[in-house]
Amino acid sequence: MSLLVIGSLAFDDVETPFAKQQNILAGSGTFISISAGFFAENIQLVGVVGEDFGEKNLNLYRERGIDISGVQVVAGGKTFRWSGRYHYDMNSRDTLDTQLNVLADFNPVIPHAYQQAKFVCLGNIDPVLQKNVLGQISRPKLVVCDTMNFWIEGKPKELQETLALVDALIINDSEARQLSKDPNLIKSARIIRAMGPKILIIKKGEHGALLFTDSGIFSAPAYPLETVFDPTGAGDCFAGGFIGYLAKAGEVNDQTLRRAVLYGSTMASFCVEKFGVERLLDLTPLEVGDRFQSFLDLSKIDD
Amino acid sequence: MSLLVIGSLAFDDVETPFAKQQNILAGSGTFISISAGFFAENIQLVGVVGEDFGEKNLNLYRERGIDISGVQVVAGGKTFRWSGRYHYDMNSRDTLDTQLNVLADFNPVIPHAYQQAKFVCLGNIDPVLQKNVLGQISRPKLVVCDTMNFWIEGKPKELQETLALVDALIINDSEARQLSKDPNLIKSARIIRAMGPKILIIKKGEHGALLFTDSGIFSAPAYPLETVFDPTGAGDCFAGGFIGYLAKAGEVNDQTLRRAVLYGSTMASFCVEKFGVERLLDLTPLEVGDRFQSFLDLSKIDD
Repeated sequence: MSLLVIGSLAFDDVETPFAKQQNILAGSGTFISISAGFFAENIQLVGVVGEDFGEKNLNLYRERGIDISGVQVVAGGKTFRWSGRYHYDMNSRDTLDTQLNVLADFNPVIPHAYQQAKFVCLGNIDPVLQKNVLGQISRPKLVVCDTMNFWIEGKPKELQETLALVDALIINDSEARQLSKDPNLIKSARIIRAMGPKILIIKKGEHGALLFTDSGIFSAPAYPLETVFDPTGAGDCFAGGFIGYLAKAGEVNDQTLRRAVLYGSTMASFCVEKFGVERLLDLTPLEVGDRFQSFLDLSKIDD
Repeated sequence: MSLLVIGSLAFDDVETPFAKQQNILAGSGTFISISAGFFAENIQLVGVVGEDFGEKNLNLYRERGIDISGVQVVAGGKTFRWSGRYHYDMNSRDTLDTQLNVLADFNPVIPHAYQQAKFVCLGNIDPVLQKNVLGQISRPKLVVCDTMNFWIEGKPKELQETLALVDALIINDSEARQLSKDPNLIKSARIIRAMGPKILIIKKGEHGALLFTDSGIFSAPAYPLETVFDPTGAGDCFAGGFIGYLAKAGEVNDQTLRRAVLYGSTMASFCVEKFGVERLLDLTPLEVGDRFQSFLDLSKIDD
């Protein structure tokens, strides 16, 4: 089924204690759409770039079958840029520089052809823009939303308005504690689900992820990684694998949601192996299937 | 099959931000044997108490079918006492007082009737005593060992000698990092397993537990607890459920080990609901079965 993805399109400069690279193709819209492309067909991307983004990068989406007729190219504009440095734990990071550029005035316009999308992924952007998008589309089967500490702190009221309209929220554990103002994740989940999203995924990094629905709780294991090369985009790749699998399955129920969490985890585990989308670009469906099986094996108990 | 348990027998004074209680029957030997008793028959306990321990407490083990002919009662002696206060996170704690008393001169003597035990659980005591016990028994089917930061720091050489002799080690994540000197748990596991124990369980509190064997990794979920009343003894109850189930199953293989981890988690999740062994004393086998099923459901994916 058709999948509408909205998110940032960016160039990142990333520095880890072990390597650094500049002008990495990135942004939530990029990671989500490419990750989802391993599962879903008919992916429709909405975003904004500057003239510096270039045909070569635009072709990268096209070649993967991603419809970019919803991507605005601002003549004379510059693409959003983010620069950050990871600490030795490869988890915490310092933002060195943020240049919003064309993202500063972004006003998402959903093309007519996108308005009937059955699955919608609101990547991590201003909650006002996320809500704005929902106002332009017919009622989809599933709306998944991502957000971050920046919006939880900076636009709490606007974020609440968006959360009231979405079916699923994907956040990490520290964001869940911050949003709910409760240190216990089980209580946090109850508080956040009461804000709107009946489906809640709390990602816990090396400790896996928790899925909360009306049917109960699902605990997904983490892939046993010995090294993380670059964590940037892992959360977006999770969201892409999650909604991409659901869009392909076409059904949202307890069992497809559990599998979707494992496919999200699978895609995130690949993402961190190289800079940006590099690993996703050489990834094969066979590798995805093998790693998904590894996730199943990690918590399997024979009857 | 017969299960030999060695560990401390103690009185604890415990204070949490929400409640406090004195003279709680405790100690690793107590928690392990009572927890294991939900699965295994023929449990043989080795430990030491003072005259103040009292017939009433000794009867508590006897009534549960635990053989205490290996428990030394030191005439005129005082039982080991520990006193601690938990912080608001109910995870970190301060030791307020430790009185070793009769434990200071404890020299475990394994009764002849215990020396053929097929399963052995070395509770958290001085690694020198743990090794001493192993020198007194025939080669069992499985030796499980627990330890803590106190011994990792204080008796590293002696601990290494004990670890070289055991089949399985149960520790928590911070202890694993400390013992291996590596922050990554997957690398830690490789380093620790090279020290001796081919079966390694790393407990991660609210994030569940990891089991490492030659067959690979098993990731066990945590029970979604909203409140912890008293964490004291949870690790020992885990060890008791783990080895108790294996002693009952009689077979140590990848599938029984996975289930043993979930039974260990099950017993730990009950332990924290009340002070000391209070919750275990009113616990029914039906409740244990129900919660074990909840653990299965937490990570279940239908084929």
